[in-house]
Amino acid sequence: MGGNSSPCASCKFLRRRCSQDCIFAPYFPSNDLCNFAIVHKVFGCSNIIKMLKDVPVDQRGDAVKSLVYEANARVRNPVYGCVGIISNLEIQVSELQMQLAVVQEEILSIKKQQEFTFTNAI
Amino acid sequence: MGGNSSPCASCKFLRRRCSQDCIFAPYFPSNDLCNFAIVHKVFGCSNIIKMLKDVPVDQRGDAVKSLVYEANARVRNPVYGCVGIISNLEIQVSELQMQLAVVQEEILSIKKQQEFTFTNAI
Repeated sequence: MGGNSSPCASCKFLRRRCSQDCIFAPYFPSNDLCNFAIVHKVFGCSNIIKMLKDVPVDQRGDAVKSLVYEANARVRNPVYGCVGIISNLEIQVSELQMQLAVVQEEILSIKKQQEFTFTNAI
Repeated sequence: MGGNSSPCASCKFLRRRCSQDCIFAPYFPSNDLCNFAIVHKVFGCSNIIKMLKDVPVDQRGDAVKSLVYEANARVRNPVYGCVGIISNLEIQVSELQMQLAVVQEEILSIKKQQEFTFTNAI
């Protein structure tokens, strides 16, 4: 039961007994079947255990959140998964950098023009 | 052999016979052990097969590339994986949007000032 009264979502999903030291229990509470089902579909049970064991206990909560996010992205976009999101963000960064460069160039040009007008006026 | 003379990287890695219709052979050529090893470590063999079968044949090359990218990100950053890259890019987008807003505000203010100067001069 992972210390709780009902088995965790993972043990419910895998139809097995939830032991006191179940590695999933702290991160997949009893009512959270959906999140476990999705990471199980993408990574598989033994891989999730290996990945959690590779990470310090105090960072396992964050690791689970990132695995759930990644698995959801893969289910929504089976070809590109998270990499599709990364590509879109990279395009957005590149476009914003270009816009910023253009606007900064415009400011520079206005300032030069003002300087020129001022110099000619005196 | 996936149609080639030597077994593909996946069959080499899994020490099994590489059949003519091996699903991995087109995407993990014989000399590409490293890429298969890394996706195998993160997703597991049966999950990769399921994910490839979920995707049209002409998009499987892209799916493999994204899985290799995602697996590498998870190995480099076991807590956040690709999600760490996404968070950093989101921060970068947000900072660039703020910078752009500031610079656009500056242009607006310069133009208003120019208009004011021009109106007062005539």
